Amino acid sequence: MSLLVTGSIGIDTVKTPFGVSENCLGGSATYFSMAAGFFGPVRFVGVVGGDCPFDLAEVFAGRGVDLTGLEVGAGSKTFRWTGSYSKNMDERTTEHMELGVLGEAPPKVPGDFRDSQFVFLANTAPALQLEVLEQIKRPVFVAADTMNCWIQGHLDDLRALLKRIDCLIINEDEAEALGGEGNLVKAAQRILKMGAGVVVIKKGGSGSIMANAEGELCILPAYPATDVKDPTGAGDSFAGGFMGYLAAQGNAEFRTLRTAVAYGTVVASFTIADFSINGLTSTNRAQIDARLKVLRNVTKF
Amino acid sequence: MSLLVTGSIGIDTVKTPFGVSENCLGGSATYFSMAAGFFGPVRFVGVVGGDCPFDLAEVFAGRGVDLTGLEVGAGSKTFRWTGSYSKNMDERTTEHMELGVLGEAPPKVPGDFRDSQFVFLANTAPALQLEVLEQIKRPVFVAADTMNCWIQGHLDDLRALLKRIDCLIINEDEAEALGGEGNLVKAAQRILKMGAGVVVIKKGGSGSIMANAEGELCILPAYPATDVKDPTGAGDSFAGGFMGYLAAQGNAEFRTLRTAVAYGTVVASFTIADFSINGLTSTNRAQIDARLKVLRNVTKF
Repeated sequence: MSLLVTGSIGIDTVKTPFGVSENCLGGSATYFSMAAGFFGPVRFVGVVGGDCPFDLAEVFAGRGVDLTGLEVGAGSKTFRWTGSYSKNMDERTTEHMELGVLGEAPPKVPGDFRDSQFVFLANTAPALQLEVLEQIKRPVFVAADTMNCWIQGHLDDLRALLKRIDCLIINEDEAEALGGEGNLVKAAQRILKMGAGVVVIKKGGSGSIMANAEGELCILPAYPATDVKDPTGAGDSFAGGFMGYLAAQGNAEFRTLRTAVAYGTVVASFTIADFSINGLTSTNRAQIDARLKVLRNVTKF
Repeated sequence: MSLLVTGSIGIDTVKTPFGVSENCLGGSATYFSMAAGFFGPVRFVGVVGGDCPFDLAEVFAGRGVDLTGLEVGAGSKTFRWTGSYSKNMDERTTEHMELGVLGEAPPKVPGDFRDSQFVFLANTAPALQLEVLEQIKRPVFVAADTMNCWIQGHLDDLRALLKRIDCLIINEDEAEALGGEGNLVKAAQRILKMGAGVVVIKKGGSGSIMANAEGELCILPAYPATDVKDPTGAGDSFAGGFMGYLAAQGNAEFRTLRTAVAYGTVVASFTIADFSINGLTSTNRAQIDARLKVLRNVTKF
């Protein structure tokens, strides 16, 4: 089934204990599309400024990513983010951020994309996520990301969004803030009461927890990666692998969602092996499937 | 096969966000034996002072724990520990500690225990762990715990111990310190080069990683417990479930070790549900097996 993503395209400068990557391609829609592209076609909706140094058509060439929804704000600036990671890369500091086009009107969903069945709304203001979602006719499965600033400052909008989506994919600290509870299983239960039927909590190097409103649980560790250079984009790559697999399967039964979490986990393990999207562009579906097999093997007892 | 444990018996005072438990029964050998007792008989070796308020014969009545190795230092004091936990219970502070008998000569292994096949050396000075181990004739599988003060201050003794044991069971921060590496898979690989053929790294609420010298890995999440009151003893209960299952199976093949990790994980989830050993004394093997099934189900994909 069709899969649409809307999110950011960014010019990132990232500092990790393993080096610095200046003015490299980043952004949630970028990582998501690159990850989801391993599973099937992706419809891309996002905006860059006239200053964007990247040729996205070239970046995504041969990867089944339809850029019809890519807008160029000629007189505007591309989103820029500069961040650094702590020694163990478990903490991230935003050193500088220029919203640019992300502070302007959200992109329009092209007419040909309005029949999309699987939809991922990457992190942005929940009101804007809703605005994009309203342009989709009859989505089958909608997932969204959010972050602490919306949980703290725009909770009503976020609650309205949660009633309209099927799945929320968030980090551990966001789940604690939204669920008002440090125990993640309990936090998930509280979030499920707000609307979305499925919640996926990403715990970085400690894996993820997925829960649904029927009380089913899936808990997987992270892939045992020994090659970790830059965690940027891991969460969006996880979402890309997760949604890409679901759209390819064409259903969102919990059994399918479990394998989708495993694929998300594995795809993210390639992202973190290098800066920008290099960890993803240098792998392939066969390598992803090989790691899925490893993940299945190490969690078996 | 026979299973012997040597470790502490303590008078604990524990403060968690869920309450305070004063002068309650604690200690590594206590938690270990209670946990291992669900799987088969346990030979207990440890020392208390003349002031010990607990009747261990009564505590362990009907649980298959042989207390022949329990010594009472009439003129000495029982080990005391007072500790408190942070809000999320992921950090523990020792507020007060009196070694008492633990600062004196280590216990002797009774003659009838010297043919023990499975042995667990709970945390203490590695030189003392070696001294106990030398009293065992032909152990089949020896596991030991350690902590940061021995890694930092007694590394030569610890390295000597590692060459004599089959398995090291430690926490995440201890693995980082001993392996000199924040990536736990790499840390495990470095520790394996020091001697022990198997290393198990406990990550508290994030589960555990087990690795062996042949490159096999087992990574399991923690049991999704919603009832968490006091994490004290979780690590020793994990070790008890792990070793108890191994001794009952009578082998230490990696396949058996995987299930042993799962049992350790599940037994620890009962420990943390209440203060002292109450979470363990109020459960039974059927409930443990039911949680093992849940753990298998939530990690399946």
